[in-house]
Amino acid sequence: MGKRLTKRSEDYSKWYNELVVEANLAENSGVRGCMVIKPYGYAIWEKMQAELDSEFKETGHENAYFPLFIPKSYLSKEASHVAGFAKECAVVTHYRLKNAEDGSGIIVDPDAKLEEELIVRPTSETIIWDTFRRWIQSYRDLPLLINQWANVVRWEMRTRLFLRTAEFLWQEGHTAHATEPEAIEEAEKIMHLYANFAEDHMAMPVIRGIKTESERFAGAIETYCIEALMQDGKALQAGTSHFLGQNFAKAFDVKFATKEGKQEYVWATSWGASTRLMGALIMTHSDDNGLVLPPKLAPIQVVIVPIYKGIEQLEVIADKIDPLVKELRKKGISVKFDDRDTHKPGFKFNEYELKGVPVRLAVGQRDLENGTYEVARRDTLTKEVVPMDEVVAKIEFLLEDIQKNIFKKALDYRDTHITEVNSYDEFKVQLEEKGGFISAHWDGSLETENKIKDETKATIRCVPFEGEKQSGQCMVTGKPSQARVLFAKAY
Amino acid sequence: MGKRLTKRSEDYSKWYNELVVEANLAENSGVRGCMVIKPYGYAIWEKMQAELDSEFKETGHENAYFPLFIPKSYLSKEASHVAGFAKECAVVTHYRLKNAEDGSGIIVDPDAKLEEELIVRPTSETIIWDTFRRWIQSYRDLPLLINQWANVVRWEMRTRLFLRTAEFLWQEGHTAHATEPEAIEEAEKIMHLYANFAEDHMAMPVIRGIKTESERFAGAIETYCIEALMQDGKALQAGTSHFLGQNFAKAFDVKFATKEGKQEYVWATSWGASTRLMGALIMTHSDDNGLVLPPKLAPIQVVIVPIYKGIEQLEVIADKIDPLVKELRKKGISVKFDDRDTHKPGFKFNEYELKGVPVRLAVGQRDLENGTYEVARRDTLTKEVVPMDEVVAKIEFLLEDIQKNIFKKALDYRDTHITEVNSYDEFKVQLEEKGGFISAHWDGSLETENKIKDETKATIRCVPFEGEKQSGQCMVTGKPSQARVLFAKAY
Repeated sequence: MGKRLTKRSEDYSKWYNELVVEANLAENSGVRGCMVIKPYGYAIWEKMQAELDSEFKETGHENAYFPLFIPKSYLSKEASHVAGFAKECAVVTHYRLKNAEDGSGIIVDPDAKLEEELIVRPTSETIIWDTFRRWIQSYRDLPLLINQWANVVRWEMRTRLFLRTAEFLWQEGHTAHATEPEAIEEAEKIMHLYANFAEDHMAMPVIRGIKTESERFAGAIETYCIEALMQDGKALQAGTSHFLGQNFAKAFDVKFATKEGKQEYVWATSWGASTRLMGALIMTHSDDNGLVLPPKLAPIQVVIVPIYKGIEQLEVIADKIDPLVKELRKKGISVKFDDRDTHKPGFKFNEYELKGVPVRLAVGQRDLENGTYEVARRDTLTKEVVPMDEVVAKIEFLLEDIQKNIFKKALDYRDTHITEVNSYDEFKVQLEEKGGFISAHWDGSLETENKIKDETKATIRCVPFEGEKQSGQCMVTGKPSQARVLFAKAY
Repeated sequence: MGKRLTKRSEDYSKWYNELVVEANLAENSGVRGCMVIKPYGYAIWEKMQAELDSEFKETGHENAYFPLFIPKSYLSKEASHVAGFAKECAVVTHYRLKNAEDGSGIIVDPDAKLEEELIVRPTSETIIWDTFRRWIQSYRDLPLLINQWANVVRWEMRTRLFLRTAEFLWQEGHTAHATEPEAIEEAEKIMHLYANFAEDHMAMPVIRGIKTESERFAGAIETYCIEALMQDGKALQAGTSHFLGQNFAKAFDVKFATKEGKQEYVWATSWGASTRLMGALIMTHSDDNGLVLPPKLAPIQVVIVPIYKGIEQLEVIADKIDPLVKELRKKGISVKFDDRDTHKPGFKFNEYELKGVPVRLAVGQRDLENGTYEVARRDTLTKEVVPMDEVVAKIEFLLEDIQKNIFKKALDYRDTHITEVNSYDEFKVQLEEKGGFISAHWDGSLETENKIKDETKATIRCVPFEGEKQSGQCMVTGKPSQARVLFAKAY
């Protein structure tokens, strides 16, 4: 505390890393690429989980739990899947340690070698489809709508807290359907569910879209995504939903008897959102003073800081505050009354600013005399004096208004950072000078996509799902294009 | 469905395995020793989690998340800890797969060998204490009260669904305190929290106790436990709470500055409860017809089965049922109206009996005419006809009464299965003929404990925490004994 954060304008990346650590969200551990999610960060994640979980359940999904380990042979069953995941996985080869004979310590027991190596799940399609084969016999067993909350491991070489870590937490949905249109409908439904969650709860505007072939999930026919824009003009993929066709059903031989008694392969989807959302949340709203949290996801929505000299004054304030705290809690608002005598009010103000608590009340001797509170809002950093009998209504208003305001602010930023260009030169200029999403025509070829990526580091984030498709000519090759796509540099 | 379960009296172990699978709670996976927790089983686990989590939070604990992997060297830092866990752990040695050069498939890439092997956490004391060193500087940072919901892996050779699996789900609490008495108080508080949860929510009576040295957690000074009794007379350890002294603080050099400015090692506890509780829950209450669930943990508390011919009758019933379902849900009661036309009422009755749904309503044409429902309770398998305007009150009564009744039934069984014996001969007879807990004097030596274990397979489950301590003479050696201890064969 007390230490100022690096300014975003000076070094955005450094600002982010400092903020994550200083606001007690997460930190690096002694294990390469694996983070520790600290209580305050985890409390935000729990709020995200609770909301997503309830939305999954409302749309008919059930939670289950599948093994952490995947036999190596399972991973190999779907060809493009293994190609996508084999390069970055943690492999368990032994199941016992023992004392070294030379007394040098504990070593892996060479006699305890597994016959078949186990992969720590990078994603669970293979183990789940091996299970679905036992669960699905008839059309009566469909649709099968399963979700899992779990940890997964992808051995990333360059890691960043929340954004890219070797181990991360996520949910992964896996569904099986009788028909292709039903599976496509499910994959799209989840894209919209993710998008609504991002916008309504994270206050983070997103673009719904479809990935190009090169950016698709390994094993998918179509990958739907939501793409957000960070304050440094870089895009962040915040959730993906895949239509898997019959690829995994064929790889794991999952057939069902139709009403007519025919045996057919089932159609599949999978979809996931992870602790990466934490990184997106932090980068979308926060400022040089610290975290800015949307009230709907803030573990502490209102903090009350007493300003007093001596225990007697504190007791008077505490008595006054007590019914207010109770009333707010009754309304489902989470309140913290910070009566610690180990820290001064100024220190506390900074701390809650850093931690992004949406509303702060301060109350001192003079407020008691005047029957008022000082109410500060985190998003605009403005303060006002509010009569005590109006404070509950004020707080309710502010929690709604802050949620709306930070969404609007992020939306304004995003909307002014979608730039249409019609030439590759203009593309390069806009990408470097302005950043954000660049909307341009592309000929649909992997070659052109790669050329642009190699030359500019921009990737195609998505083909937007909504809006009219406008045909044109590729900005690089001049070949025909069906629709504009969105390019950006990305996390 | 339709298949009858093996009777408990015929083969208790077979009955259990069949019940877990037939009631859709869990099943074995393609990965040795790892289970799949199916949606219905997971829904019960989620109810347990929600209750425990809220109790942890009410007692000041916060959730966090620590890495899945533990560097081998960490595990070695606390001597007795590594001795306890090295023999049964999954070891990650490589971080990449590749295509075999001979085209035979995917192999572990020998170039991707880790410098230091990583252990998949069997428990997290070491990685957490490595983190606590950074979090604790001063007495102001204490107590530190952390909980984690996670998966852990212990390479068991003989596994059974829920009771003993290579991977299992659990919560692990890890706390740090300024003083020894405070840490002991925490460890005991959690034992009581577990015990109250077991009794009030699982309706499972438990004995609170202290483990003997040989049964203690590897690295603990004292292990507190709760022990339940299954219907086959075997005991089951349902949760443990450890006072760790300063062992881990010393191993990981975690000191704090006292108010007086002295540097001291902190005092620690850890405690855990796992998906093993699912096994305990199943075995405590269930019968030859299937699962019996306490209403507080039942995913479906009330099921309504319509008895009808043709869609028109069903619609009349559905119209009648709709306001009832809404009223019950408003009261927080989870209700399922099973209007599937693919199965007959008799099939459904069996299914919900097997799944342990506490209350079943049936409603047919005659009920509509008479203004009644047929209401059945799962615990006693009794039915009665209830006037429609009394049915909500009846359901509320039944949910409370079933919760009490199954607890009482389990308590009666348990209490009649604690047998005091005063000679080793009597001990052996009672253990074989009656089973359950045998209360006997023991001289406190490991030698006697092992002798009894080798000769009878009974272990000392605990030294009871409550009740008067009565001194006497060891039933085996005649040496003095401070208090009776409880022996049993155990899961």
